[in-house]
Amino acid sequence: MNHEGDIIKLRPIGTVSSEVREPARRDWGDVSSEIIIDPAYLEALDGLDEFSHILVIFCFHRSALGSSVHLKTHPQARPDLPLVGIFATRSPVRPNPIGITIVRLIQRQGNTLVVQGLDAIDGTPVLDIKPYLPGDSVNWTKMPEWVHKLHVQGREETS
Amino acid sequence: MNHEGDIIKLRPIGTVSSEVREPARRDWGDVSSEIIIDPAYLEALDGLDEFSHILVIFCFHRSALGSSVHLKTHPQARPDLPLVGIFATRSPVRPNPIGITIVRLIQRQGNTLVVQGLDAIDGTPVLDIKPYLPGDSVNWTKMPEWVHKLHVQGREETS
Repeated sequence: MNHEGDIIKLRPIGTVSSEVREPARRDWGDVSSEIIIDPAYLEALDGLDEFSHILVIFCFHRSALGSSVHLKTHPQARPDLPLVGIFATRSPVRPNPIGITIVRLIQRQGNTLVVQGLDAIDGTPVLDIKPYLPGDSVNWTKMPEWVHKLHVQGREETS
Repeated sequence: MNHEGDIIKLRPIGTVSSEVREPARRDWGDVSSEIIIDPAYLEALDGLDEFSHILVIFCFHRSALGSSVHLKTHPQARPDLPLVGIFATRSPVRPNPIGITIVRLIQRQGNTLVVQGLDAIDGTPVLDIKPYLPGDSVNWTKMPEWVHKLHVQGREETS
């Protein structure tokens, strides 16, 4: 990484390998995929498999190409949900196309991480891996009505 | 953002304003700070204040300058904790110096977010803001012994 004025340059540390090759709305909870880490960072993974959950930081590389960023959007492109600011959503089309997902770490095999629940398609560049720590879990939260609508509806669709 | 070969270029969307000006080990839980978002993104914040908690994605800009990245480290530089891979820690010195912290959103005033618990010093470039959603909270987790040691000890130190 380096700075060039205000620009921050990052280099992927790995890539997602998945049977899902096209972005689409789906229930990602049961999707298994692999994260292939650059072998140069093999040692940097030591001890990771003592965690059941990890944060995967990746680049929305498809969303980033050629699409202009709107400042407001309907969450998950659902017109029945309110138009809100892009920073109030997890939309992939955002000023810096960084995605963050908490996934279950099933297994580490050398430089391969087998994970469950990663909402990233095959070929997605991975920027960082972090352990899920106690501070990441919040007991009390307030969220807008549309989030509850999204989750209840999501569950109904997939049940 | 754009790609140049494997390089991913990001541009900060805002900056941290805080009374904390030097990195140091401390209890950040009670630290209040402000995130000043680029006014160009004012509308992109609409609806964010309906959430009690947000994810702040920032750049460890001090750690990034001039320091070489080791593949393994003692968490929080404590020699009594085991030497583990950098991806099994939240150390700021890592291949891509991206920090992620879940904070309490106290207030939004225009392009300023008042937050509590952000472990980032004054002047830190902010890359993204996301709402904390139900999927970010994990009920069941497995973590190594050193994490429990860190948290119990941390609590003892500050009590």
